[in-house]
Amino acid sequence: MAGSIYGNIFKIATWGESHGKAVGVVVDGCPAGISLSETDIQSFLDRRKPGQSSFTTQRNEDDIVEILSGIFEGKTTGTPISMLVHNKDHRSADYSQISQYYRPGHADFTFDEKFGFRDYRGGGRSSGRETIGRVAAGAIATQILNKLGIRITTYAKSIGNIEIDYGKFDPDEIRNNPMYMPDKDAAKKAQAMLKEKMAEMDSCGGIIECVVSDMPSGIGEPVFDKLDASLAKAVMSIGAVKGFEIGDGFKVATSTGSANNDGFQMKNGKIIKTSNHAGGILGGISDGSPIILRAAIKPTPSIAQTQTTVNKSGEDININIKGRHDPIIVPRAVVVVESMVAVTLVDMLFLSMTSRIDKIMKFFRQ
Amino acid sequence: MAGSIYGNIFKIATWGESHGKAVGVVVDGCPAGISLSETDIQSFLDRRKPGQSSFTTQRNEDDIVEILSGIFEGKTTGTPISMLVHNKDHRSADYSQISQYYRPGHADFTFDEKFGFRDYRGGGRSSGRETIGRVAAGAIATQILNKLGIRITTYAKSIGNIEIDYGKFDPDEIRNNPMYMPDKDAAKKAQAMLKEKMAEMDSCGGIIECVVSDMPSGIGEPVFDKLDASLAKAVMSIGAVKGFEIGDGFKVATSTGSANNDGFQMKNGKIIKTSNHAGGILGGISDGSPIILRAAIKPTPSIAQTQTTVNKSGEDININIKGRHDPIIVPRAVVVVESMVAVTLVDMLFLSMTSRIDKIMKFFRQ
Amino acid sequence: MAGSIYGNIFKIATWGESHGKAVGVVVDGCPAGISLSETDIQSFLDRRKPGQSSFTTQRNEDDIVEILSGIFEGKTTGTPISMLVHNKDHRSADYSQISQYYRPGHADFTFDEKFGFRDYRGGGRSSGRETIGRVAAGAIATQILNKLGIRITTYAKSIGNIEIDYGKFDPDEIRNNPMYMPDKDAAKKAQAMLKEKMAEMDSCGGIIECVVSDMPSGIGEPVFDKLDASLAKAVMSIGAVKGFEIGDGFKVATSTGSANNDGFQMKNGKIIKTSNHAGGILGGISDGSPIILRAAIKPTPSIAQTQTTVNKSGEDININIKGRHDPIIVPRAVVVVESMVAVTLVDMLFLSMTSRIDKIMKFFRQ
Amino acid sequence: MAGSIYGNIFKIATWGESHGKAVGVVVDGCPAGISLSETDIQSFLDRRKPGQSSFTTQRNEDDIVEILSGIFEGKTTGTPISMLVHNKDHRSADYSQISQYYRPGHADFTFDEKFGFRDYRGGGRSSGRETIGRVAAGAIATQILNKLGIRITTYAKSIGNIEIDYGKFDPDEIRNNPMYMPDKDAAKKAQAMLKEKMAEMDSCGGIIECVVSDMPSGIGEPVFDKLDASLAKAVMSIGAVKGFEIGDGFKVATSTGSANNDGFQMKNGKIIKTSNHAGGILGGISDGSPIILRAAIKPTPSIAQTQTTVNKSGEDININIKGRHDPIIVPRAVVVVESMVAVTLVDMLFLSMTSRIDKIMKFFRQ
Repeated sequence: MAGSIYGNIFKIATWGESHGKAVGVVVDGCPAGISLSETDIQSFLDRRKPGQSSFTTQRNEDDIVEILSGIFEGKTTGTPISMLVHNKDHRSADYSQISQYYRPGHADFTFDEKFGFRDYRGGGRSSGRETIGRVAAGAIATQILNKLGIRITTYAKSIGNIEIDYGKFDPDEIRNNPMYMPDKDAAKKAQAMLKEKMAEMDSCGGIIECVVSDMPSGIGEPVFDKLDASLAKAVMSIGAVKGFEIGDGFKVATSTGSANNDGFQMKNGKIIKTSNHAGGILGGISDGSPIILRAAIKPTPSIAQTQTTVNKSGEDININIKGRHDPIIVPRAVVVVESMVAVTLVDMLFLSMTSRIDKIMKFFRQ
Repeated sequence: MAGSIYGNIFKIATWGESHGKAVGVVVDGCPAGISLSETDIQSFLDRRKPGQSSFTTQRNEDDIVEILSGIFEGKTTGTPISMLVHNKDHRSADYSQISQYYRPGHADFTFDEKFGFRDYRGGGRSSGRETIGRVAAGAIATQILNKLGIRITTYAKSIGNIEIDYGKFDPDEIRNNPMYMPDKDAAKKAQAMLKEKMAEMDSCGGIIECVVSDMPSGIGEPVFDKLDASLAKAVMSIGAVKGFEIGDGFKVATSTGSANNDGFQMKNGKIIKTSNHAGGILGGISDGSPIILRAAIKPTPSIAQTQTTVNKSGEDININIKGRHDPIIVPRAVVVVESMVAVTLVDMLFLSMTSRIDKIMKFFRQ
Repeated sequence: MAGSIYGNIFKIATWGESHGKAVGVVVDGCPAGISLSETDIQSFLDRRKPGQSSFTTQRNEDDIVEILSGIFEGKTTGTPISMLVHNKDHRSADYSQISQYYRPGHADFTFDEKFGFRDYRGGGRSSGRETIGRVAAGAIATQILNKLGIRITTYAKSIGNIEIDYGKFDPDEIRNNPMYMPDKDAAKKAQAMLKEKMAEMDSCGGIIECVVSDMPSGIGEPVFDKLDASLAKAVMSIGAVKGFEIGDGFKVATSTGSANNDGFQMKNGKIIKTSNHAGGILGGISDGSPIILRAAIKPTPSIAQTQTTVNKSGEDININIKGRHDPIIVPRAVVVVESMVAVTLVDMLFLSMTSRIDKIMKFFRQ
Repeated sequence: MAGSIYGNIFKIATWGESHGKAVGVVVDGCPAGISLSETDIQSFLDRRKPGQSSFTTQRNEDDIVEILSGIFEGKTTGTPISMLVHNKDHRSADYSQISQYYRPGHADFTFDEKFGFRDYRGGGRSSGRETIGRVAAGAIATQILNKLGIRITTYAKSIGNIEIDYGKFDPDEIRNNPMYMPDKDAAKKAQAMLKEKMAEMDSCGGIIECVVSDMPSGIGEPVFDKLDASLAKAVMSIGAVKGFEIGDGFKVATSTGSANNDGFQMKNGKIIKTSNHAGGILGGISDGSPIILRAAIKPTPSIAQTQTTVNKSGEDININIKGRHDPIIVPRAVVVVESMVAVTLVDMLFLSMTSRIDKIMKFFRQ
């Protein structure tokens, strides 16, 4: 149970280390008959690609995906889809030093504690490159969601202490700036702030927000496999995420029942909610309102400032991590959060297909 | 996949509705040889029992647990442990009215959307009584953790806007006041505030904090089954939880790498962290520091104030929910959070036993 | 992973020991909206009840099932269905002796090896009473199969060396004789033979055959979750089963491709097979022909003859197992095999609902 | 749930079609610290390689395995091991014809029924090449078993009606003849018989036997995850297997309790069985005796004789399958059976590590 397999029906198995030969994913349980090409996957991968701005790693990777199975004549066959991206930029030499100590804020120490040793090159399996498999799978899941009319919008809600202004919210802006913020002005301020952080040899965190529109109601399984619980695991499994919330999230702690409850009303013959404090999920089941969730992302742990740690000989030492590191993880993590949400939604949609015997009988009578 | 089964190796299957004959749980995968009696389970159940203070439901339930299998001569046998609590206080008559409309903030609407109809008596399966099975299983998991020297402390960190003062933190106080707060003064203030809310026919939320001490390092599976991700799902699967965080949680979003990174140092020949912003988990694996997590609990949705909703005939109506309802969920949810954490830790500890071939070889040579 | 939970979507969790308070099962993942009463379950349980003929245990049990959850106003609600049967006939005194040695052919020794000790009363968890939970779940699964037009016929194909004659096959005869054989004459011969075995203080085995009619094609998942592989696990998990085969089974080993291949042909606009050596499954997927499977059942291990074994003090001893034991397991196991097949078919039918995107799109547009 | 992922803790995810770019497997849950090289895998793959004798496909494949992840400095790291074999010999042209009809005995028809269409080139995912992933994973599982002192011997017990003579059993002979038979004379006879079948444009089946030596007792989980049930699923999931048995298997149906029961006795201070009719498993748990299992393999369905089937236009037609096909599957399937057994044993051994609290406490105190 090394934990690299995810999902109940729509399953993904990711693999690969930062400086191994390749990273990849096997998607098992994808329905047959979906048009799918490497271009569909590539457009997702390009959103997490390094080297896109002065704030992201200048790693020289093209990250070109190759599909090895599961597609025939341009369509999914229902059998496992194996995809990989070759690692071109190994530069193993750079990492000889970090093999000797534990980087603060990284998983070096805990991998050693767990496994007895570690592939120290670029963080090995705990590297951000691990997410390539998630994003490739997310691209496929998104194709399925699109066919069901479900759309996901994900963006940076805040970077450090710079928050977006919802009054200026422009979805088209999200992919227009390197911050992946839906507010042009906030994005500019965030970039200015990041330059300062870089000058200070420091880094900062932020919050990613994700909104799922046109989600059908009735999705999510009561008790342990609630939709919000499943999304929580999906999002919290991404490297730097330290917090997760749905709807009003932590704000509910200081709210009241009268303020926090969403009323119901009729509109055009349909039951809708009068507000959406719940974030689209009641009792673990989608209620037809947009699903709104947020993830708190920690500051990049690799900073150029001097830090204290311990070396292999058990001595307290000071270290300066060399090389060029992103001062912020948030922008590149946006598509990772979106991918994990997409994969989870598909899985939960599929699970929900057996909730009612009348719908099952109709299905098999087709 | 109705979602009432949880766990990979230490598995629990809960069942039962608020006003059915009984509620219960089957625990499968409990190791043989653990001394276990109904008293061990009862002491956990008593912590979530209604009617313990003026702030909790006056439901007339003893909630006496009965163990039906899996124990022989006072010890677990390694086979499934089936436990149940009979529902004495059915009072089905009280609920005839709520069968006709959707209560705001409850799962009435989404259960109907998912299943086509619902057991409306007392919320059916979405009732807080569903957690009895979780807590009974949590009592067993805690026995296992105790044998491994691991301790969990859980309490109300805040109720509404009343927060505990860590300077006054007294663990013995937690079970001394009906707020389950480790700060006597905060507990008093919270009770005064709750009385006001009740007078206003309103309710409020709060935050539960949980600290795991003496957790061994190396537990948690990289990538999807990270320890924090697994805990997130466990805790978010509890009814009223809208947010989850680990360590500094949402605060990391406005922190910096230099402030948020925990350094390492040698102490008495062991590697320890110089701080614990990470909350005891790095890269999804426990690092030997205390695990600290928090859950945001929403205000009780059942309030006596007039609310707007929709009835079965598709008409907008105003409702007043009758009966006596807790103005706060937090105190009774403390043991539920602790139980879900305990169950998850046992499962993750067991999963971690196959991380290293040298330890496996030693195990089988015993 | 004590192994008492089965299924992917339609899941069952059984529990209970032969001489504990009760035995039971929790069924999770049953769709909402199925009419279900205790009578539906009882009729299945009655087929495995002891004391029905001179060839089955005279244990004084009524085996009356009680449903504790998951049903509201006579219909399944989609939440877990908990069912139990109280053990009335404990007679623990009878079993003081067998606590001291290992019965040949029983699981006494291996339970001790695995768990360090065992509930020795009546075999504890390894007793045939463990199957009560399977059969109760099988009754529910059968209700679902019936709604989809699928029927299962199960019977004793042979008892010892007495085989049924397919020329005399009469399905109505199956429940007419205590042998559960579809051939009246064979049943008579089998009963005569069993009387001899009893006089010789011996027991015998047999073969159970199961035929699934009107099974839709396309069910079963390629590679590891093939329909035949899943059925094999289901049936082999029943206590006394030592062999499993599908279609021509072991006969294929001496057949030829030209004889064993089933041709295809058009009939009334549909593609059918010209023969059914494959037993209704090709490449792990149902082909629309009847599914035919067989299980080899070993002779009852409890016999009155003197046997050699070892006692707790590590001495070689001779034993004579007292009490009255069935000379044959086959008749009572017929409904157990049918139940495991039913549960597995429902699970595989549900899993197959996501094979094609066009059908998924149609489902969600309902 | 397309079914290409197998295992609970030691998990494998296979992928790939006969004529896609590659076939492969991801092994997740392999412990850290095992020396492993591509040579270890290759030696297993070579045992199933085509073109090794006149009785196996002359397909021009080297089947060279490449390890892409999970190994660092020659040792497993505990992270997923991704392995692939490129398909060199596509020859897609050969398969244009079979896209137009359903080959008897193959999965062409059922894949179409399930998925709506199929990758018809060489059988696509239902090709024997699918087993490459299983065998590569089996090579790793075998390394683990070796470290625990467990050995597996697998061979052809019969080919058509030619059976081995146990009096002449020579384990060294198994890999000496293209039949993988442990009896030189039987192997010769089998080859002569196969030549006849080829002349008759026909094929034949056989039985594979597998013996696991030095298996520790206490492995296997009662009720649904019995060791024999798990092995049954593992082996029945291999393409051409139509029957599975353990120990005396189908012979028990005509045996008696007095003959079939294995007595116990003391030998050198240990409890052993006086015979092994049970095949090393009692109550689903290993008893310390050798595990003996058998699989019935059907005749190769691809034969050169004229066969009847249906074409895409819904017409009854006669077909002659062209190309060179193995007249027997058995020899190449020997290593596949062994691999599935190895993978299953490792998984079940790992699951058994949590059976007893005393052993768990000792483990964590290491």
